[in-house]
Amino acid sequence: MTDTAPTAALLIIGNEILSGRTQDANMAFIAKHLGTLGIRFREARVVPDEETEIVAAVNALRARYTYVFTTGGIGPTHDDITAECIAKAFGLPLIRNAEAVRRLELHYAGTGMLNEARLRMANTPEGAILIDNPVSTAPGFQIGNVFVMAGVPMIMQAMLTGIGDRLVGGPVVKTKSVASAIPEGSFADALRTIAADYPGVDIGSYPAFRQGKVSTALVLRATDPALLETVTALVADMLRGLGGDPIIMDGYGDQ
Amino acid sequence: MTDTAPTAALLIIGNEILSGRTQDANMAFIAKHLGTLGIRFREARVVPDEETEIVAAVNALRARYTYVFTTGGIGPTHDDITAECIAKAFGLPLIRNAEAVRRLELHYAGTGMLNEARLRMANTPEGAILIDNPVSTAPGFQIGNVFVMAGVPMIMQAMLTGIGDRLVGGPVVKTKSVASAIPEGSFADALRTIAADYPGVDIGSYPAFRQGKVSTALVLRATDPALLETVTALVADMLRGLGGDPIIMDGYGDQ
Repeated sequence: MTDTAPTAALLIIGNEILSGRTQDANMAFIAKHLGTLGIRFREARVVPDEETEIVAAVNALRARYTYVFTTGGIGPTHDDITAECIAKAFGLPLIRNAEAVRRLELHYAGTGMLNEARLRMANTPEGAILIDNPVSTAPGFQIGNVFVMAGVPMIMQAMLTGIGDRLVGGPVVKTKSVASAIPEGSFADALRTIAADYPGVDIGSYPAFRQGKVSTALVLRATDPALLETVTALVADMLRGLGGDPIIMDGYGDQ
Repeated sequence: MTDTAPTAALLIIGNEILSGRTQDANMAFIAKHLGTLGIRFREARVVPDEETEIVAAVNALRARYTYVFTTGGIGPTHDDITAECIAKAFGLPLIRNAEAVRRLELHYAGTGMLNEARLRMANTPEGAILIDNPVSTAPGFQIGNVFVMAGVPMIMQAMLTGIGDRLVGGPVVKTKSVASAIPEGSFADALRTIAADYPGVDIGSYPAFRQGKVSTALVLRATDPALLETVTALVADMLRGLGGDPIIMDGYGDQ
């Protein structure tokens, strides 16, 4: 299934992911959220906290996709270099954003805590539009088609859901799942025929091994609900013909 | 911290990750495993089950890193196209690997289940070396510096741990963590100075928000244990100077 809907990529900036310290918790949330907006999530990359890597990845992705989202590297410490890197990628000066400063001043008013390190969190490329941070104030920003967000999941989620009106989607992809105990290899040829006959439906086949038993989840995705129903019924019939007792679920079921 | 140790990239092939159906569970395992081998994990990419995307990513990554690992797309169904794509990326014919066929024949002996779809799992680029699959038999394979593994975590883990003798590492990076309740912005300037003074130690700063309280984990990584001890002590002293009561842990602690 390919269409002309807007596309998106995610750039995860973080040594902590590549070292194995932290399991990424943002990609799946972003994937689901973009799905509800009708935006096709096409690629994700994880790069270290290094300027040349970040700049190269941002420029590769922003040229290729409608939207690019980044997570990580916007805090006050020396390893937070995302804002500088995005400015470099766009060939723009890095400035101290007056509105971001104002928000930090309000947040830290009376605490005496607003030092130079924290003010660095107000740096953005010139011309950036802020992304609200209702959790801890220090904002993300948008420049061109790139949306720069925090890596802390709670903050990232608030930022992403807050910029919905800046993102234009296409038709939403609907999903059906068909689960059965028939192993993949037993229906692969029949399924290949159905997939070839209906290119408007993307069909994924995912085996699972639980307590020594094999089961398979078939996931069907399409923008046309009637076509999705038709092909889901065909897949379920095919599995019944093989002696399966398929369970049809909206969405991904309980996996 | 940059050095001359062997490097690695991971290519995750899977619509199920980009659709948000499945949370990737392989990256963190691979990251930790490569760490124990002294291989620097430098980049990860997630691409859809599409030939042009897979071929382009494989060729970009294998030119750049010592080792490339792929996960996903080696089953029997129509959406399993990794072997064909790797062959295309290398400009090699896709052949039916005789040893892989032999293993599948043994596994399915007497069941009558070894059909053409399952035999597709024996296809590899010409000249590939198999990667054992002790869980469900159908092997992965290595061609050049690219290691093609299953996406199912249990199988991927068995494959990766089985090829340790094919991977040459460099010095292992040692890790210390220093946790405290001091928020990042309060020590960022002092930490920047330490980080600049000791470029041989990579220092990451990771805030956490738990039950409304801010805490910070500083993660120090270096190949030189004595240097790591020295800088860890400096960081802990710096936090004590700010009124913190730092906890020093080997590795990542309990996060």
